[in-house]
Amino acid sequence: MSNARTRYIVGVDLGGTNIVVGAMPEDGSRQLAVRQAATQAELGAEAVVHRIATMVAEVIADVTASEKAREEDFLGVGVGAPGPLDRERGVVVVAPNLGWRDFPLRDSISVRTGLPVALDNDANCATIGEWWKGAAQGAKNVVGITIGTGIGGGIIMNGVLYHGSSDVAGEIGHTTIDSTGRYCRCGNYGCLEAYASGPAIALRAREALERDEVSMLRRMVDGRLDELTAATIYAAANAGDALALEVVRDTARFLGTGIGNLLNILNPDVVVITGGVTQAGEPLFEPLRAEVKRRAFRPAVDACRIVAGTLRSSAGMVGAVATFKQQRLGAV
Amino acid sequence: MSNARTRYIVGVDLGGTNIVVGAMPEDGSRQLAVRQAATQAELGAEAVVHRIATMVAEVIADVTASEKAREEDFLGVGVGAPGPLDRERGVVVVAPNLGWRDFPLRDSISVRTGLPVALDNDANCATIGEWWKGAAQGAKNVVGITIGTGIGGGIIMNGVLYHGSSDVAGEIGHTTIDSTGRYCRCGNYGCLEAYASGPAIALRAREALERDEVSMLRRMVDGRLDELTAATIYAAANAGDALALEVVRDTARFLGTGIGNLLNILNPDVVVITGGVTQAGEPLFEPLRAEVKRRAFRPAVDACRIVAGTLRSSAGMVGAVATFKQQRLGAV
Repeated sequence: MSNARTRYIVGVDLGGTNIVVGAMPEDGSRQLAVRQAATQAELGAEAVVHRIATMVAEVIADVTASEKAREEDFLGVGVGAPGPLDRERGVVVVAPNLGWRDFPLRDSISVRTGLPVALDNDANCATIGEWWKGAAQGAKNVVGITIGTGIGGGIIMNGVLYHGSSDVAGEIGHTTIDSTGRYCRCGNYGCLEAYASGPAIALRAREALERDEVSMLRRMVDGRLDELTAATIYAAANAGDALALEVVRDTARFLGTGIGNLLNILNPDVVVITGGVTQAGEPLFEPLRAEVKRRAFRPAVDACRIVAGTLRSSAGMVGAVATFKQQRLGAV
Repeated sequence: MSNARTRYIVGVDLGGTNIVVGAMPEDGSRQLAVRQAATQAELGAEAVVHRIATMVAEVIADVTASEKAREEDFLGVGVGAPGPLDRERGVVVVAPNLGWRDFPLRDSISVRTGLPVALDNDANCATIGEWWKGAAQGAKNVVGITIGTGIGGGIIMNGVLYHGSSDVAGEIGHTTIDSTGRYCRCGNYGCLEAYASGPAIALRAREALERDEVSMLRRMVDGRLDELTAATIYAAANAGDALALEVVRDTARFLGTGIGNLLNILNPDVVVITGGVTQAGEPLFEPLRAEVKRRAFRPAVDACRIVAGTLRSSAGMVGAVATFKQQRLGAV
């Protein structure tokens, strides 16, 4: 048996709805003591930090007990948070879902846990998580796309997360695919997010239903069209509903256009898509890949796999551990 | 005086029309013995390689004489060529302007010159040239955009040229800005190149003139609208012609949309634009910057300068020297 003690890193995935905290050995071989709690952002930033610190302490206590680890075996805490962030100052610049502005998240957690903390945005964490332990393992250049309420992205180049000059690299949701197209809540026109985020998918279905098209969707929400979600639409598509299938195919076409751009710019070997939209499965991925093939250069298409993430709800936590390693220990 | 002898690298910029060859000391402090000759691609690939090798030999002879250098002080040859390339095999995969397909340019030049050769595409060379010695000096993350017959691009991240997984990274001209827009010669619809390359600019002006709009442009080409070029249009715009100014402003809007996407994806500190289009000057750059500001995220806009290249016709040669250093010596 080796004398080297196992060292651990705690990962925190802070979302608008839930907080996920767990620990991993430095080699990422296992997920330990993973737990989840409601964020309750409405109670204020200090309450959220307190909840995170408590969860981190519980995880450390659990792992110390189950693994016979010591407190000094914990190297630090990686935290994924909604962006944009300023990593140098350790600050969440703006997070509408949390109601935060210029909040010093890194140091707040560090003070309460007594551990070094590395901060990164949630989409970067999901991307490096899928690269380290999920669907993009072994790839050199990765684009990660997280589709939910918004569309975020992360970029890995030559095995390292790329943050850009002011930590906003990877804002794939706000690339223009139709310069005179749909209004986006960012204030711009024709952003990918305005077509293919969860709410945008629901909106396009609602517009079609308001044109009196036939669909089981109307019945699925008891006629309350404002209750339509992307998940309802995937369910209807999987049940063969023609209108829902059309909405999914259009979604694939929009995503394929945006992803085609990424292939021509970044020429990645893997594009990994995470978030609820992946529930749509092959009815989404198959036309999406076809659109990318139509739009991107052949050598870029041939070099690239386009896949759904496999880590699901733990991608952010695993990625927070990985970004801690990359930022603080120099390599993953 | 130091005992260390100055070492030199030869740079070759191979274009469809001209070949530019020169040498630089390893530190890039001077351009030496720069010369230019017609490519004459119609004489065949072997004739082009022979011409390049002859020019390289002349440059080396000149520099040996003027600098009292020895042949062994020449470390190698950097070559910029129209892409796409396969750098691993040293091959030009397809170059329509040269009529080449799968031509082993690197080894052909190496055999004839007896020197190590590093190959890179012309847009990458222009980008690293401007970064090393031109308008993007001192930047960490750079996007270079070369606008001529087509629109090419190069990406520098953390001071290193990024090539992607199969050497096609940076194909900015073929990113979609209008998914159902103009047909592009790549077979796709709505590519940036279909709106803002030299021929696309001329085409848009011709379309406007065919609608009988008033303009000095008609007189400038003696009514032969198919002789309109982007340069004619810049000249008319600088003389205050309203239609030409509108074409330039539209060009700025299209380029601004594509560059806005690059800011949100790559968050560079400099975007450097090279090629004939920069002759348009501030009437182009001012509305271009405004469009980028409208489209991209504030922290990405604030972090980024958008400038015209300063090396002009020597950008490719200087960049070929720089890419040799980066590929063969590990750093620039």
